[in-house]
Amino acid sequence: MAERKNRQIVLASRPEGEPRPENFRMVESEVVTPGDGQVLLRTLWLSLDPYMRGRISTAKSYARPVEIGEVMVGGTVSEVMESRNAAFKPGDFVLGHAGWQEYALSDGRGLRKLDPDAAPLSTALGVLGMPGQTAYCGLLQIGQPKPGETVAVAAASGAVGAVVGQLAKLKGARAVGIAGGAEKCRYLLDELGFDAAVDHRAADFKEKLAAACPNGIDVYFENVGGAVWDAVFPLLNTFARVPVCGMIAHYNDTEPPPGPDRTPRLMRTILTKRMTVRGFLVSDFADQTAAFLRDMRAWVRDGKIKYREDVVEGLAAAPEAFIGLLKGRNFGKLLVRVAR
Amino acid sequence: MAERKNRQIVLASRPEGEPRPENFRMVESEVVTPGDGQVLLRTLWLSLDPYMRGRISTAKSYARPVEIGEVMVGGTVSEVMESRNAAFKPGDFVLGHAGWQEYALSDGRGLRKLDPDAAPLSTALGVLGMPGQTAYCGLLQIGQPKPGETVAVAAASGAVGAVVGQLAKLKGARAVGIAGGAEKCRYLLDELGFDAAVDHRAADFKEKLAAACPNGIDVYFENVGGAVWDAVFPLLNTFARVPVCGMIAHYNDTEPPPGPDRTPRLMRTILTKRMTVRGFLVSDFADQTAAFLRDMRAWVRDGKIKYREDVVEGLAAAPEAFIGLLKGRNFGKLLVRVAR
Repeated sequence: MAERKNRQIVLASRPEGEPRPENFRMVESEVVTPGDGQVLLRTLWLSLDPYMRGRISTAKSYARPVEIGEVMVGGTVSEVMESRNAAFKPGDFVLGHAGWQEYALSDGRGLRKLDPDAAPLSTALGVLGMPGQTAYCGLLQIGQPKPGETVAVAAASGAVGAVVGQLAKLKGARAVGIAGGAEKCRYLLDELGFDAAVDHRAADFKEKLAAACPNGIDVYFENVGGAVWDAVFPLLNTFARVPVCGMIAHYNDTEPPPGPDRTPRLMRTILTKRMTVRGFLVSDFADQTAAFLRDMRAWVRDGKIKYREDVVEGLAAAPEAFIGLLKGRNFGKLLVRVAR
Repeated sequence: MAERKNRQIVLASRPEGEPRPENFRMVESEVVTPGDGQVLLRTLWLSLDPYMRGRISTAKSYARPVEIGEVMVGGTVSEVMESRNAAFKPGDFVLGHAGWQEYALSDGRGLRKLDPDAAPLSTALGVLGMPGQTAYCGLLQIGQPKPGETVAVAAASGAVGAVVGQLAKLKGARAVGIAGGAEKCRYLLDELGFDAAVDHRAADFKEKLAAACPNGIDVYFENVGGAVWDAVFPLLNTFARVPVCGMIAHYNDTEPPPGPDRTPRLMRTILTKRMTVRGFLVSDFADQTAAFLRDMRAWVRDGKIKYREDVVEGLAAAPEAFIGLLKGRNFGKLLVRVAR
């Protein structure tokens, strides 16, 4: 083991605005042997997610930022290579948070064993993992779509949005997806069964969205902000619910957008339309994990919820893939295959 | 009866910005005799409330605007003078919506009989009426204060705010009131038992509010917007609840405030702090009326909830009083004594 190298991607510097490749740096170190109670994990799959942009900023948020020189955080599926922890044995597959690196030590806390025969291992980072549960809890607990209502979601071909739209359909609602480009929109309609799909890059996006929502919008699952929010806002119905899950259009902002200040307009509309705008993290719904896994495994098995993965090969590809994620370049759940 | 005159205040023109006296006009007409099924009401008390500013604007809202030449809307306590409706007899006192006029006909719909021995009649427009129920439902259903949490409310000496703070205390929370001027602040502390009171006119208001909320704010009952919201916003805790009841600081706005646009900042904070911002009208909680009346009557009777009325005399005084209300000139629930 001693000559085996661990490659890690660390934060080299904090981005100003859009992250660039030089904000990340690959470092090598020796793979260390697990101590008592520890396991050595080899990363098979690394998940890339929009929340990581927040972690490399110093803006106040719900989690401490990644420090300069520290390994980038991230959800992972790993294989147990060595174990000095009775709960794990070599060859076990586990879901964890090993971050952007090829090997990691763990004391076993926060690891969940995966059955490779039940579902492809990578799905534990997508439809059967954090993004899937984000959609499940945000839509069902906060959005609460009722049959016949209209649910709109942006980044709709992404890991969260795709589940939101399909879940809305399962609940009898009308699903309107917003995505970037004709190919993604076709996918929403043809593969995922959305009722309408609108390309936010179209010049007449606002009009197209309004046309796709003839009865307004009852639930808007907010992943994006920016121009999409501006188009959604006037369409929101009385008693609309807005689960706020992400604001990817603003993650690279270096200053607030120019005026006027539309905060009073937003607050007045929340009042007059009696809207509910509620932010959440999937971890707020940890008590829903068992229900989520039970439901989502069945829906995926029965073909009621479909998913798509966008896989890049090798840890070295992670920075560029992550930068592209923030620009909407991925098509489906973005994963790095770190090892086979 | 035929020679008796009805005086009415109608909307003469729509205000641009702050309403002025000339936006209202007094007109006289004959008092008409009730037809079959109708009652003739004589207004004793007229309630003046901030929501009326919205009704004289054409901005889209939850209710249709008052038309030019139409009698101003408003909650009233009236005496039944004549009745051709079996449910009412002369001498009955009723809560209704007769508007800014001395006499009104009603078919009985929406009228609720009042017992003048149970509580002063005017309280049906205040602590035991719409404002009281607004506080009760907004705070208890949306705010859901828990013992030890901090509840902040602006316009805290007003009809709604005063009940919010006292209810917060009843629920074991810490009540922080925001009001205009030292006299109102003293009243909050000395009469209503708030834990802290902050004068929003003070030059160091922001610092004073922060000092009054050493553990942040868990529930902010939003009546105001503007500079008060700006001071509250950074103090809001993770999982804060913001029932949005009013935005009186903005009702006279003729254009949005200058930039930058702080909407993205608000939405990101809603996300990272997992806040719930929810607008409501008291009518959304009509199913709570019986519970409200039961609880609030007991609390008022037992001295657990106190109230203060600001009474102006005579219908003709209504426009100036209403204009003053929007500037915070009233001190307590603003009422017009139209007749004794």
